[in-house]
Amino acid sequence: MGLIVQKFGGSSVANAERVMNVAQIVTETYRQGNDVIVVVSAQGDTTDDLIDKAHEINEKPSLREMDMLLTSGEQISVALLSMAIEKLGCPAVSLLGWQAGFNTTSAYGTARIKSIKSDRIKAELDRHNIVVVAGFQGINKYDDLTTLGRGGSDTSAVAIAAALHADRCQIFTDVEGVFTADPRKVENAQKLQEITYDEMLELATLGAQVLNNRSVEMAKKYNVEIEVLSSLKRVPGTIVKEVVKMEKMLVRGVTKDTDVARISVTNIPNIPGIAFKLFSKLAQKKINVDIILQSVGRDGTKDITFTVSKDNAQSAVDALQDFLDIDKSNITCDTNIAKISVVGAGMESHPGTASKMFEALFESNINIEMISTSEIKISVLINAEEADRAVSAVHRAFFPVS
Amino acid sequence: MGLIVQKFGGSSVANAERVMNVAQIVTETYRQGNDVIVVVSAQGDTTDDLIDKAHEINEKPSLREMDMLLTSGEQISVALLSMAIEKLGCPAVSLLGWQAGFNTTSAYGTARIKSIKSDRIKAELDRHNIVVVAGFQGINKYDDLTTLGRGGSDTSAVAIAAALHADRCQIFTDVEGVFTADPRKVENAQKLQEITYDEMLELATLGAQVLNNRSVEMAKKYNVEIEVLSSLKRVPGTIVKEVVKMEKMLVRGVTKDTDVARISVTNIPNIPGIAFKLFSKLAQKKINVDIILQSVGRDGTKDITFTVSKDNAQSAVDALQDFLDIDKSNITCDTNIAKISVVGAGMESHPGTASKMFEALFESNINIEMISTSEIKISVLINAEEADRAVSAVHRAFFPVS
Repeated sequence: MGLIVQKFGGSSVANAERVMNVAQIVTETYRQGNDVIVVVSAQGDTTDDLIDKAHEINEKPSLREMDMLLTSGEQISVALLSMAIEKLGCPAVSLLGWQAGFNTTSAYGTARIKSIKSDRIKAELDRHNIVVVAGFQGINKYDDLTTLGRGGSDTSAVAIAAALHADRCQIFTDVEGVFTADPRKVENAQKLQEITYDEMLELATLGAQVLNNRSVEMAKKYNVEIEVLSSLKRVPGTIVKEVVKMEKMLVRGVTKDTDVARISVTNIPNIPGIAFKLFSKLAQKKINVDIILQSVGRDGTKDITFTVSKDNAQSAVDALQDFLDIDKSNITCDTNIAKISVVGAGMESHPGTASKMFEALFESNINIEMISTSEIKISVLINAEEADRAVSAVHRAFFPVS
Repeated sequence: MGLIVQKFGGSSVANAERVMNVAQIVTETYRQGNDVIVVVSAQGDTTDDLIDKAHEINEKPSLREMDMLLTSGEQISVALLSMAIEKLGCPAVSLLGWQAGFNTTSAYGTARIKSIKSDRIKAELDRHNIVVVAGFQGINKYDDLTTLGRGGSDTSAVAIAAALHADRCQIFTDVEGVFTADPRKVENAQKLQEITYDEMLELATLGAQVLNNRSVEMAKKYNVEIEVLSSLKRVPGTIVKEVVKMEKMLVRGVTKDTDVARISVTNIPNIPGIAFKLFSKLAQKKINVDIILQSVGRDGTKDITFTVSKDNAQSAVDALQDFLDIDKSNITCDTNIAKISVVGAGMESHPGTASKMFEALFESNINIEMISTSEIKISVLINAEEADRAVSAVHRAFFPVS
């Protein structure tokens, strides 16, 4: 038996019935002889409701007060879950972020965990309590409450698992694990038994939002083994760890991301350093750039194409027009596109992966508008309308329907 | 200019509009050059809603987890009020009970304030912030959250005013102040300019729930001047302090309390100490006894009559039957009664007060069933149906309609 950290998201504790279900899982683990630390998020839509309440009063509240407001959400969940565990006859104690020793940076709304002073958690475990910790929150050096930003509860769970050298960190969600593609859309999508941190990071970035990226990065850094599994269906999930059995798969999954805008600039004067200046301009405006392609255009000028999230498309175009003294007609922005990617640490030693992907798209008559590759992924941009068909076609190529 | 503590109850911050109204009051006081500390309760029905949520999961949750749950209510109010104050252009900072230094006893649900470590509040005042403090809550020696029980926010406000030697402690409610009788029911009820702590305590006990009793006791102990006033109508309220100008009033107010049950026991053997044993039996069962009358009955036996709250009537009767070896027919319990009282520190040197009250009741043809007097009040028990008519008649005697 060992120390197990279990994390439950907002939908897993959305109402009394769900809270009791979580209490069932937790107390079963405890009764098997384990020490259990549970990390929970705010119930269902609580966080969004609180944000609405704030905006009714002040459209731009200070971040400090926003954190003061939002941290009440997890406070409610931890109290209710502890009551549910008590109801099932096990001893429980709830702890807020500051009580659990989460020391963070001062950046309200996007704080980072600096350290976990785990004395209190340890003392409660020694008393054989199930420790129910409020995720997503901590305290800064001013003794003020902070939040870790969206998805921060995953990070809270991994951080506790790392600090206390837990034997396993289980992240319960509303899906059964990590799949080779979205199982609601792709026939024959398969649940992965194991996946590496790097693969998980690529999948998350590519839109398969099962685990928050920061939590995966932290798990990789401290070598915390994560299991992603369902809180409703009691079946084994997917283990995320450093090295996995390669099985026969080259590719771990196929994903699509439709939150992409492609911006192209043609006829840029061929001056050294112009690309650097252009992208540092975007960075100043906090616009994240994903894929970048540069090619030589006509007359010795340059063409640069890159992608940003749809939210950032207009401000990226504006920044370019301010910065480059060129005709507006040279800047085009296309939001009707999707990024399809295959991810897998196995592919780098198998040069056939890319061609297999392109072949699948060609056979489905889908035009590739842009290609980008890294060691563990290959991404293509295609027309948005064809995204689902493309994912199915590529998935079928790598995971044939048996 | 000075230091002013302002306390707003749950109905004063029940929605966004009310919160903005409170922010108006607070920022006006601040802009007049005062240092301002605001104490707020949870919004409207929040506390009751949270209790319902808890009971849906566990009918008997531990008190510790209940306090963890309930304290989130004020956390939401302080954050929202701070945002509203920011919106009106003044600097604000919200503090939870523990951040504001409220150290309490460990009794979850009914904790008492042991001390206020006011460094943080002072530091925030030095930075010219309006300090918005969560009422009703504190922290115990285990670093766990505690609540002060219902009405605890009044106590929080008075405690801060005492600790920081505030120039005034304003308790904002939904009434304009303390009245000579319930203004919704009694014609010509008058708002009092001033009232002593003792009078206020009697009025509160007698059902005029404007101020929580513990807060008045604390105000008396630390000589904190309280003003009770309306958060909706900007007119002067009632000042509660040690010594008040006597004006011409003998009587401060007329109140009724219908939460009364009268229990009579006849034919008790005339054994020394039997009354003592009887009432200590009730005390063991935590039954508060209000008025007690004892008279000699027939055959040298005793008759004892006393009043308790309606909630406690049945268990008081049960306790008596267990304890006294007498016929059940000797115990009667009447819940169809009301207690009408006149209160005023001026009355003790004016023997005419009691007879004036009795005369008013007699002229209205209302039968007095029991009488009890103290230095600053006279109470009578009458039939419950006649309560409102009795209050009006007595009030008219002391405060003639001009």
